[in-house]
Amino acid sequence: MNINMLSSIKESPLFKIANPESIAIFGASNNITSMGSIMLNSLLSIGYKGAIYPVHLKETTVQNLAAYKSIFDLHEVPDLAILVLPTNIVCSTMDQLGQKGVKHAIVVSGGFKEVGSQGKHMEHELIQIAGKYGIRFLGPNCLGIANPHQKLNPTPFLYEGSPGSIGMASQSGSFVTQMFDYLKRLGLGFSTAFSVGNEANIDIIDCMKYLGACPNTKVISMYIEGIKNGKDFIDTARSITPHKPIVALYVGGTETGKQAGFSHTGAMAGPDRLYDGIFRQSGIIRAHSITELFDFCWALTSLPRRIGRRVIIQTNSGGPGATAADTIGREGMELPRLSKKTLDKLAPFIPHTGSIKNPVDITFSRNQMDFYAHIPEVLLEEENADLLMIYFLAPTNMLKQMLIKMGVSKIELNNNLDEIIQKNSDAFVAMLENHKKPVIGYTYNSLEEHFIQALIHRGVPVFPDPKRAAKAIGAVIRYGQLSDKIKSPQINAI
Amino acid sequence: MNINMLSSIKESPLFKIANPESIAIFGASNNITSMGSIMLNSLLSIGYKGAIYPVHLKETTVQNLAAYKSIFDLHEVPDLAILVLPTNIVCSTMDQLGQKGVKHAIVVSGGFKEVGSQGKHMEHELIQIAGKYGIRFLGPNCLGIANPHQKLNPTPFLYEGSPGSIGMASQSGSFVTQMFDYLKRLGLGFSTAFSVGNEANIDIIDCMKYLGACPNTKVISMYIEGIKNGKDFIDTARSITPHKPIVALYVGGTETGKQAGFSHTGAMAGPDRLYDGIFRQSGIIRAHSITELFDFCWALTSLPRRIGRRVIIQTNSGGPGATAADTIGREGMELPRLSKKTLDKLAPFIPHTGSIKNPVDITFSRNQMDFYAHIPEVLLEEENADLLMIYFLAPTNMLKQMLIKMGVSKIELNNNLDEIIQKNSDAFVAMLENHKKPVIGYTYNSLEEHFIQALIHRGVPVFPDPKRAAKAIGAVIRYGQLSDKIKSPQINAI
Repeated sequence: MNINMLSSIKESPLFKIANPESIAIFGASNNITSMGSIMLNSLLSIGYKGAIYPVHLKETTVQNLAAYKSIFDLHEVPDLAILVLPTNIVCSTMDQLGQKGVKHAIVVSGGFKEVGSQGKHMEHELIQIAGKYGIRFLGPNCLGIANPHQKLNPTPFLYEGSPGSIGMASQSGSFVTQMFDYLKRLGLGFSTAFSVGNEANIDIIDCMKYLGACPNTKVISMYIEGIKNGKDFIDTARSITPHKPIVALYVGGTETGKQAGFSHTGAMAGPDRLYDGIFRQSGIIRAHSITELFDFCWALTSLPRRIGRRVIIQTNSGGPGATAADTIGREGMELPRLSKKTLDKLAPFIPHTGSIKNPVDITFSRNQMDFYAHIPEVLLEEENADLLMIYFLAPTNMLKQMLIKMGVSKIELNNNLDEIIQKNSDAFVAMLENHKKPVIGYTYNSLEEHFIQALIHRGVPVFPDPKRAAKAIGAVIRYGQLSDKIKSPQINAI
Repeated sequence: MNINMLSSIKESPLFKIANPESIAIFGASNNITSMGSIMLNSLLSIGYKGAIYPVHLKETTVQNLAAYKSIFDLHEVPDLAILVLPTNIVCSTMDQLGQKGVKHAIVVSGGFKEVGSQGKHMEHELIQIAGKYGIRFLGPNCLGIANPHQKLNPTPFLYEGSPGSIGMASQSGSFVTQMFDYLKRLGLGFSTAFSVGNEANIDIIDCMKYLGACPNTKVISMYIEGIKNGKDFIDTARSITPHKPIVALYVGGTETGKQAGFSHTGAMAGPDRLYDGIFRQSGIIRAHSITELFDFCWALTSLPRRIGRRVIIQTNSGGPGATAADTIGREGMELPRLSKKTLDKLAPFIPHTGSIKNPVDITFSRNQMDFYAHIPEVLLEEENADLLMIYFLAPTNMLKQMLIKMGVSKIELNNNLDEIIQKNSDAFVAMLENHKKPVIGYTYNSLEEHFIQALIHRGVPVFPDPKRAAKAIGAVIRYGQLSDKIKSPQINAI
């Protein structure tokens, strides 16, 4: 067995942090605007099922929970302690945790390594204390953990959306918490997300290992400002990438990014090319923005792991067809010719003003319902293609007109628009799923449009620009190549 | 005077097409789902003030307007005729227009050059007929015109949003009509937009000339699948770009894009590098996606024409600050050090866990209201910087918490959230406008968030990723350089 792989997720120092049965929280109070209180509020809001023990010097209840004057007053040893305390009492509190026998903690408090030499000294002390008692902890200067599958979210943001399949190991807490809403809008969610902060004890490599072993995680995303142990990072990633894709955004590669990262978590960044090399050796796909990071995760969780380069574009508008065709070519993919069989089957549905080349452009002059039934059905059977890319032009107003054309009365429409959209998207997605060919959508509408949301929530990725869709497809193709390379023993020997 | 410039916009063959006082429409009926009817419906919906004459063989009224059996029955010669007719009667109708004395037309009907040799023949005939009578027309195979300033929108999509300042000359009708909603979401709108179709008579260069002279147009956007007359294109663009920026998306430069464009409008594309050269000589900024096209227009209409490279980033979250810093560096801009004066003024507002380097990161531990008042006020006075880039994290829930902290009661909040947001964003934007330094925002929230929408509609561009913001700033800087080059007589002589 590879020593960089966990034989069981329970071996991870993060297991009890991500799956605690009881939590002591320091710094939550009845002042609902303090950071600790906001975090407790999120934990309660998501419906966490374990025991919660607020520790507070003065209060007897905190947010309607019985409060404890000190950790020593608890009748059990909690699985996890969360510290949202002033910097200067973090070390002494950690010592008390050790005395009580607590083995896992999250230190949210900042003011350590990231602020300079005095903070660095305090961080060193914190490490010593934890080491003495065998405490494993995330942070300091972090936002900790979100594991929506366990209804666990002691972060300052309410968890939105459903539990998902994207793992996250992040050197920024914002890219855990501020992504809840972002991912929800794409119909996505985190499996488990870690904010690692200063990585004084548990580091981003531990998180990667955990997520590699986590059954809820289909793809691992990482936000990186600097890696400390390059060799361990590569070895760990290489043990994961053959069976689970990893996508990383690295921002320390420019002078400007390096500066910012250093002020943020005290991370030491390295030159861009060095990181390019690390990622390549690791089989990690590099993203160049947060948008790309999650676009790639979206495609990697919704398309098959292995896809070919031959794309059919289906459109009802020439311009959007041409922009997609252009970007498909630029991203290194192909638009194959359609087979005679497909052309024959398509002919009845395409007007003389349309095109049965690829892109297949039905224009607006025929029955738009064919666009959602007969035409994709034919295209999904095309043997010369690996993937179907569909342009969705679905403003609610247009959809209404289409449904009226189909005989739905106006009154029925207004009363039941939502239901009609649900039913139609159900039928459409069921038809797509009957075929083995993957489907990816693109649109210039808002992703918050009813119909687009319905598609997204049924698992069809719909990108707000064909370029983003094409780059995401490219990431999936690249994953196939990278994981092949990692698997090849010749390369492994390097 | 430059012969490529119009001395008056009224000289343009497009003047009466974009500003008609009366319109005859062919192909609109009481079958509300036909293309012609939908187009008439849009024209009525926007509240067009001129006379509308539906021409219909059988109906006496069309959508409650008196209808005419033929163009000869009209008691006046309309400024503009719009033809949404079966291909085979377009030529004969054009001949009747000529006999009546109509001088301007839009031919929406497709089935001409873009479908092959028979269509090409018919298009030639159409050109001959128009030539005989001196008719100038847009199309065929186009969606015509939208001029929201004149409440003119005879296209198949309802115009959404307000009249704006982005001109459009497009070889795709979709990138006129399907952008109404897109631009509205960014708080933008078209000044006048042309869909040129097959350019049988009026071409994209005529549109560029018109928009160059159009007082409502601050920036010209173009969607190009192929240019026929390169020299004329360059000369015209060069007469415009010194005083008005032009941004173009060209999609014919790949094999795949070329194929698609040809099926669409029969345009002959050329190699990418050729077009790069054309754009460079013309002083045109090239965009590589629809998203970029309008991002660049957004920045070019909301930032000053000339800006420097020194950017200050203001954030309350380290990760979003670092991603912006990284991308600012990658796009060729700088993060200057803050002056001693600025540092002194900032000190009281930044906690010890924050950073008063650039990015200025106030973190979450202090009064968030400073983020919207004192801090930007200080930063806008920094002499070492040209532009302030602000991270907006403004989900409504967070804003509510902030307002409660400020003493707004919960009841008041729920009753007046919208009003409160309007008031706060008014105050914030007024403060920004009191300073000369341009401001650009970025966010990972939905642009449809209340507060973000309030900012956008007050003229502060807020991009959904710092990379898009940085690229847009880059486009403005590039415009300054390009227009300088064009103005220089040395280069003009080429």
